[in-house]
Amino acid sequence: MKEIKSVAIVGVGRVANHIATTLYNEGVEISAVYGRKTELAQTLAKKVNARVITDISKPIRADLILLVVSDDAIEEVGKQLSKSNKGIVAHTSGAVPMDELPADLRRGVFYPLQSFSIDKKIIWANVPFCIEAENDEDLNALGGLAERISTKIYVLNSKQRKILHLAAVFANNFANLMFEFSDELLENANIDREIMHPLILETANKILMQRASESQTGPASRGDLDTIRMHREILGEGNIYRKVYDLLTTEIYNRNHDEKL
Amino acid sequence: MKEIKSVAIVGVGRVANHIATTLYNEGVEISAVYGRKTELAQTLAKKVNARVITDISKPIRADLILLVVSDDAIEEVGKQLSKSNKGIVAHTSGAVPMDELPADLRRGVFYPLQSFSIDKKIIWANVPFCIEAENDEDLNALGGLAERISTKIYVLNSKQRKILHLAAVFANNFANLMFEFSDELLENANIDREIMHPLILETANKILMQRASESQTGPASRGDLDTIRMHREILGEGNIYRKVYDLLTTEIYNRNHDEKL
Repeated sequence: MKEIKSVAIVGVGRVANHIATTLYNEGVEISAVYGRKTELAQTLAKKVNARVITDISKPIRADLILLVVSDDAIEEVGKQLSKSNKGIVAHTSGAVPMDELPADLRRGVFYPLQSFSIDKKIIWANVPFCIEAENDEDLNALGGLAERISTKIYVLNSKQRKILHLAAVFANNFANLMFEFSDELLENANIDREIMHPLILETANKILMQRASESQTGPASRGDLDTIRMHREILGEGNIYRKVYDLLTTEIYNRNHDEKL
Repeated sequence: MKEIKSVAIVGVGRVANHIATTLYNEGVEISAVYGRKTELAQTLAKKVNARVITDISKPIRADLILLVVSDDAIEEVGKQLSKSNKGIVAHTSGAVPMDELPADLRRGVFYPLQSFSIDKKIIWANVPFCIEAENDEDLNALGGLAERISTKIYVLNSKQRKILHLAAVFANNFANLMFEFSDELLENANIDREIMHPLILETANKILMQRASESQTGPASRGDLDTIRMHREILGEGNIYRKVYDLLTTEIYNRNHDEKL
């Protein structure tokens, strides 16, 4: 197969909706939609001019059968698929290895690295797509499809993709928790949390220009022990802010000084 | 005093250079520059058409004497200033209380909340200025000056400013450390760290739209224990990534679930 011309979508959640409509808008035929919740499947199918299928154990006619379901469900849904399916069967998960899909299908992965938490239009051109397949032909086919919606295509194996997913927890979930702490500290002191927004944007924008380690500033990287003492005093003892402050301050200090804190 | 028309700059470092040239470009007279490193003072003075002063214990003729020196130096420099100075004497620090300046001067604070770590043009219009003074007249004068270069002016007392500075450590330094960890995990797995940039930018951009707590996603907030187990296995035991992972994952989980992790 040189090109994926038709896609069946298994799943009717937020990500399934985003991907299905984006592919449809790019002129890809969405041949079928399956979802346990038939009503949601009908709604999505209508949007992308697809038919609803109700039994995924029958062969599905599509160049790509895309499993856009939760990580836990991938293995089970894979097992239900007919072995007579001719198209590539790919999941869209960062954490699940390709080989959780049945070995007698043409397996692949089509993972968009993005956070889909809000009802916000996704700028797909900037979303990195991580693809994997068992042979070059299928890899090229998945790459060709990804290129229709994004400019950033990465070929990663299952082990690399797991580590990418873990790195995203640090860069997204944990960074976001630091923003939560900032929100809370400011609001407790009657300071509008918006005061921090320009600095947060600048912190992220620097990432485009240099390694994060080169952007580090603040009392720990400078070794300003008076300010660190003052911050600890403000935070008090034993709470989560203080625990995180101590752990991360020590790490930043030790990365930037010969003597340990 | 209704308006600050002339400013003397004490300090010749990066922030002093940024602030002096910005004020000068906005048409504010820079009447004098002082720096212990005379050569740097001469260079800056030339840029902003100011004279160099070599003895700050003599009275300085300026509506505002701005101490753009390190936190440690503020108290000492303040003591050296002549009590006959008629202008406001303000420092530019987030961490230092206003009352570290001598009580017999007209004291103030003029603190720009931004990270000046790279040689990058500062978009001053977006930089929040936090001002403080001992009376409304001086506060208005400092506010008027700040408005010439920024659209975001905040009146904060010394205690609030300390907490703001602490919150900035979480939102900037600690978030940046999370980006460092992400860089390192990716590079160890031979994955181009640029793959994470769109997600980091999206994480920051969400801050403009909603509270950070509403943006949280990922295995800990979903309660996906299988993925958390897998991540812990990848990280191993006892290293800093694992310590941070455990502390922050537990916190995110507990914030989002009735039962504790």
